[in-house]
Parts: sequence; C-alpha cells; structure tokens
Amino acid sequence: MTGEADPEEIFRAEGGILILSATLGEETRDLFIGESGLIEYVGTAGAVRYGRDAAVTIDARRCLVLPGLVNTHTHAAMTLLRGYADDMPLPQWLTEKIWPLEARLTGEDVYRGTRLACLEMIRSGTTAFNDMYFHMEDAARAVAEAGIRATLSYGFLDMGDPGKREKEYRATEALVSHVAGLRNSRIRAAVGPHAVYTVSEEGLCWCAGYARQEGIGIHVHLSETEQEVRDCMAAHGVRPAALLDRCGCLTPRTVAAHCCWLERGECDLLAARGTAASHNPTSNMKLAVGRAMPYHWLREAGALVTLGTDGCASNNSLDMFRAMKDAALLQKFFWNQQTVLPAPEALAMATEAGAGALGIGPGRIETGAPADLILVSTHSADMTPLHHAASNLVYASTGGCVQTVICNGRVLMHERVVPGEQEVLEGAAKAARDLVERSRS
Amino acid sequence: MTGEADPEEIFRAEGGILILSATLGEETRDLFIGESGLIEYVGTAGAVRYGRDAAVTIDARRCLVLPGLVNTHTHAAMTLLRGYADDMPLPQWLTEKIWPLEARLTGEDVYRGTRLACLEMIRSGTTAFNDMYFHMEDAARAVAEAGIRATLSYGFLDMGDPGKREKEYRATEALVSHVAGLRNSRIRAAVGPHAVYTVSEEGLCWCAGYARQEGIGIHVHLSETEQEVRDCMAAHGVRPAALLDRCGCLTPRTVAAHCCWLERGECDLLAARGTAASHNPTSNMKLAVGRAMPYHWLREAGALVTLGTDGCASNNSLDMFRAMKDAALLQKFFWNQQTVLPAPEALAMATEAGAGALGIGPGRIETGAPADLILVSTHSADMTPLHHAASNLVYASTGGCVQTVICNGRVLMHERVVPGEQEVLEGAAKAARDLVERSRS
Repeated sequence: MTGEADPEEIFRAEGGILILSATLGEETRDLFIGESGLIEYVGTAGAVRYGRDAAVTIDARRCLVLPGLVNTHTHAAMTLLRGYADDMPLPQWLTEKIWPLEARLTGEDVYRGTRLACLEMIRSGTTAFNDMYFHMEDAARAVAEAGIRATLSYGFLDMGDPGKREKEYRATEALVSHVAGLRNSRIRAAVGPHAVYTVSEEGLCWCAGYARQEGIGIHVHLSETEQEVRDCMAAHGVRPAALLDRCGCLTPRTVAAHCCWLERGECDLLAARGTAASHNPTSNMKLAVGRAMPYHWLREAGALVTLGTDGCASNNSLDMFRAMKDAALLQKFFWNQQTVLPAPEALAMATEAGAGALGIGPGRIETGAPADLILVSTHSADMTPLHHAASNLVYASTGGCVQTVICNGRVLMHERVVPGEQEVLEGAAKAARDLVERSRS
Repeated sequence: MTGEADPEEIFRAEGGILILSATLGEETRDLFIGESGLIEYVGTAGAVRYGRDAAVTIDARRCLVLPGLVNTHTHAAMTLLRGYADDMPLPQWLTEKIWPLEARLTGEDVYRGTRLACLEMIRSGTTAFNDMYFHMEDAARAVAEAGIRATLSYGFLDMGDPGKREKEYRATEALVSHVAGLRNSRIRAAVGPHAVYTVSEEGLCWCAGYARQEGIGIHVHLSETEQEVRDCMAAHGVRPAALLDRCGCLTPRTVAAHCCWLERGECDLLAARGTAASHNPTSNMKLAVGRAMPYHWLREAGALVTLGTDGCASNNSLDMFRAMKDAALLQKFFWNQQTVLPAPEALAMATEAGAGALGIGPGRIETGAPADLILVSTHSADMTPLHHAASNLVYASTGGCVQTVICNGRVLMHERVVPGEQEVLEGAAKAARDLVERSRS
C-alpha cells in the first residue's frame, strides 16, 4: 500500500479522504470519508465520483478494511505499570506492588500513561475504548490529543465508608461535568461503580440513579473471581448480578467486565436487561481466575458479548487482535469444544458488539457509519495465504498488521507512522521511572 | 537502531559482524561474530578491539540481544493450510479438510510452505526449529536457502500395516541419507515416529534402533489427547510414555510434543531418560485437548521443558513470542496458580531449553556459542516502560519487535528487511491457491 498524499497532509486532513480498492469482505470497494467524520460512500466508483474533491487519497490494494476495534474494558494509564510486577500471588501482587504505586500516581502520570495506551491502541487498530481509573480529567486530555474515541469513568470505590462515598459522588459528578464541558464528540463519560465487593449497596444505587439522570452509561466489574461471588452471597444473600440488578445498575448502557463466574440464570438476566458483557480472556488466564466466561450461555440468552484487554498490569498488552485469539482459544479450551467462538464471531465481538455497547454506531463499514476504520495489510508472512480473512485476522495476525487507522474521519496512523510517537514514548518512560523512584522513597 | 552497513553488504557478510551497545540482561555489551559462525567476543571494548576488522557494524542501542528462539515442534509446510479450516469438530476437520489437502501436497508445495514458514519464523525471532512432515527433502532445500537452522524428521506412520511400515523405513533412511549428503551444519535429520496411535510397536522399536545406530534424535507426539491415552492402555496395557520407553524411544535426544495428559510418574520417566518435552499451548487450547501439560511436575522431576507452536493448521502462527505468552497464561489458568511459569522461565524454555533439546549450543549469549541471536527493539509502545525485560518480552511484545536476526553468523533479517521476501510470499500464496484448486477437482 502506498499513500499518495504528502505524509503531513494526510494527518491534517479533516475528512475528504478517499480510500481506493480496499478489500471489504469478499469485494473490492472504494470509500469516501466526508468532513462530517462519517463514511459517505462505499462503492466501486470512488475515483470517478470523489477523485477531484478528495484532500487525501489512500491506495488500499492488498489491504482489508475493517471497522476500528473497540476495547470495552481497560484501565489505560496502567501502561505505566506494564511489567512492573508479574507472576506473583494475587494478594501480594496487589498489596506489595500495584497499590503502593497507584497511591503515588499523579494526574500527570495518568495523562502520560493514557497517551502511551492510546498510542499502543492506535498502533494495533483500536479506535475506541471503555476506561475506568482515577484522575480521569487527565485521561480525557490524553484522549483528546490522541484523536481516539473513549468512554471514561471514574473508578468509584466507597468500601462501605459513608465519608468516602460522599467523596466518590463528588468525583463522579466532577468528571461527568468536565467531560460535558469538553464538547468533544469522541469523549464521553460513564459512571464507574468498581464492583460489588468495593462499593456499598447505597453507592451502587446512587451510581444507577445518577447514570439514569445524566443519560450516560455504567462501567462495572462483575463476577471476576469465585471469592467475589461467595462474599456477595454471604453479605447480600444474592449473587453479584442480582445485587447489581437490585440497585438498578444493569441497564442497556452498562458494560459488565469479566463475567467469569456467571450462572446460566445470570446470563439470562444480563440479556433481559440489555447489559453488555466484556470478555477479558488474557487477564482471566494470567490472574488464574479459575473459570472462563460462559460465552455460549450468554450467546444463547441473546446477551451482547464484547471484548476487552483489561489494564496493562494484568495482560500486559492492549492489542485487541491478540485478545480476539485469546478469547477464541480460552473458550474452546475451557468449555472443551473446538467449535465455540469461531473466528468471525470473535471479530464481531471486537467490532459490532463493542460499538453497540458503547453506543458509537454500527461497528460496520457502511454508508452513514462513523469513519472509525482500519486498513490491515494482507501482504505479510503471517497473513499468507489468505484462505479466510477472518481466520487470519483472529488466529494469525497481530496489531502489527494494521497499516492505517482512521477515527472520526481523521487519520491517526498511516503506513505505521503515528505523529508525535517519540514524545509519547519518552514521556511515559520517564513518568514510569519517576513513579517507581517515588514509591521507594 | 541504525545499521551503519550498506544493506546489501550486511546480508552478504560471513562473519566479521560487530554489534555495538546491545543490552544483555542488565548490562550494555558489544559482541563480535567471527567467520566461524560463533560468538567470539562479548564485552565492553568491541569498537576498540574489532572496529577495524569488522565487515559489518550494527548499532544496537535501544535493543536487547537475546539468543534466537527455538521452536521444538512444528509442521512447517502447513503454513499453506493456515486459515483454510478452523473452528470445526476435530474428526470432521481432519477428514474433510486437512487430510484431503495433505493427500495432494507435492514436494514443491512443501518447499513453498516451508520457505513461508522460515520467513515467518525469521521475522519473529526464531533461528531453529524441529520439524516433522512429508517430502522433507524439499523442506531441507527451503531451510538451506532461508539460512535458518532445523532438525527435520519424516513423519513415520505405519498404522499397523507391515507393507506401509517397510515404506516408512525406506523413507526415513532416504531422508537421513539425503541430509547427510547436504553437509550443511544447520540442517540435521531426526527419526519421526508420529505417535503411539499411528505407529506399531514394531515400528517404534525400529525407529529407536535406527536413531541409535545413526546417532540422531527422535521427534514424536506424546499424550496430546485423553483418547490417545485410553486407546494405548486398551491396546498395550500401558500408558503412552511407558510404551515409548519399552520401545527405546525415550532418549536424551528425543523431543516429545504436547505431553498434555502425562501423569506424575510419566514426568519422572521423561526426566530419568533425559527426554525433552515440547509444550504447545496454543494448539492445545485451539484443539480443546482438555488438559494443560503438567509443567510443574515436569519441572519438579527435572525434565527439560521446551516450547513449540505446532503447525499452522492448529495455531495458526509460528510466532514464538506469542507461544511464550500462551504457555505462561495457560499454565497459570489451568493449574490455578498465578506464580506458575513466570516470564524468565518462559524465556528460558524458548531459548536454553530448546537449544539443549536440539543439541545446538547453550542457547545463551556467550563467547563460543553459535551466533544464533536476535536484536529486539525496546523503542516501541508495547515495550514501554521497561521495568523488567523478561516480562515485556513474554507478556507484551510479539515477534514484530525483532529488528535483526542472525543465524550461524549470517544476518537473515536487519531492520525488519528479509532479502527475497516478496518471492517467498508470492510463491506460497500461489502454491496454496493451486492446492485448494486441485483438492476440488
């Protein structure tokens, strides 16, 4: 693939982007992206119809065009902790390594870590993500600059403490108000009750009511470990999904991450409420949670199942291509069936389902859809031969096959060049070094 | 990293390669590779001592230097079947898809598929592999041209048929004689009794005797599925490892692939015989074999545990970086412990252990070792920050981080350029298309 535009020009263009001869499914198609940030044309006469008007023309022969991937569960700024501590028992890992560092995280760190996360996501074909962390105003700044799309939630943890709960109310409201003030169509706020074991029933009810009042989504962890289920039964007399439902947290705009220990009835409940599940296979394996999300039950119930990487402390990669393969492998292995989660379904989880869960268009390449799309080279060893594109995308390729990334009609990467990459890498590396230094003093 | 040599010159150089300022563990080191194909110097005075004599100088600042990765179980030519059929029940997948295509494979196909496999391996940092397939004289031709190192075995399957067995004897002898005639130090032959369910006891005994007589290794599948164990008990009254041992197939030069269903006593037996196990986590998950190799038992017994990708029909990638992560994830998840197979052990499996199993040097960067090494860039989003190199290598990076690959003192890839790549890709793509075409007629 050769970009015929001046490299600088291509990153400046706001719409007016003509993509020629991309492979869409089994067909060769031209696409035109207008100033609206939408895909305005998908057809075979792109050069004739838009050749004169296009600010930028991209030759996409030897490329598949796909919707940008959607990562529905991460803690982006945790890139700063990538590889800081692995292979430890969970309690020791949290108390001795992760929490001491997180306690020293500043807003500037979250900005640097989120910039790095956005860079890594762009380089691996992700155009939208669902984030939960702290100092989220700084995360919003990073997302605004990076050009990617995100739904940001402040991680609400009251630990049953009324004083802490009040603070979490104010922090949640502050983020929602801050994001509204940005008036950036790429950035949305959600309410982020962390989990049933870290948020009181009162806190969960407030989160549900506030999300409803503001007309925004909810981002929550659900049934990641068996311990969480046991403790919830002991404390509340019901399993975690029922508790969330009792508090009003299961809505069509809720994303519930992990869902490893759901029973069949809980899958039906998620489906009935229209709540999306986010599968995080890599994190679940690395942290040895003991069970894989019951994908087949969720699917049979008609629930929306999406895909996430989780944060970099527990994965340690944000590459959604790798997450697609991990999902397909884990489902087959754990549920003991070679046919579970075939490649086209894994691809749909990472595109259509994710876009649906975050409410950002169809997650398909079609006229009128947001121009969130990627061009994936088929001219590489791992994509050769090309018997079935979905199989190669899910099982053979990585984010490294992505050549061009467009989000909201702007080119964020072209021929694997991301403007400003050097500064992002250096800034994050320095922030990570300084953070470890501070934690030792 | 910038190669200061003329790009053409660097690929022509036979030794005389000076690598400056690479990161080796926690230190910065220069390396000099002589015409012998060995690492002749590791130290801090490379420029002073070898600056004048070097034919080629590589600036390796911002790069980790690692031993080349060793893939101890694959069927290289099956790259041609990559993505041809996935997500199907195992019997149907084999009988309707894989076997009909394999029946039509020609020697030229195996050459083309193995060239593609070598390209993919080089691009992802693998410098040696242990292969079992058919038309292996053509595989040898591909390996000779690609510059990589390989141990090649003809897949011996007699299915209990004496006539077929005789043919397998002759085919095995022919390959061993052919490889000896090549007089290429990078290419070795091994004997390849496929598995206990496809080779008669008589055939297994012949393989063991022939390998002993020729002083070469054995490559065999062992206890991949529970069915294999059950059938072996029914037919032979012992579990598969005991049967192989009874026939003399468990030797210090044997690589046993999969080993998923080993009992503790079988782990002790492998250790006692000095036999290497090859862990193939990705294939085992994709084919839903129901159990993960008992790595902790093998390790406690003192057995050599190595790493493999398996063939491209059941993985579908030959990237050993991904296999390292899959191994670490699967072991943690299946054996329900976050501390099993930490990153440094996964790295050692893919380097030292693999080199030891194939008898190709220490698999470490040290003076006198074969110059099979790779330079991995640390200047990328997925390798940032660099708290612990082993963690990033295993959990965050992919083969795409590899910048330079040297095997036997020759540069096979530099700055991600592999000479002749285009022809290999086109040849393999055409061979795969033609093969599918033939299978339909």
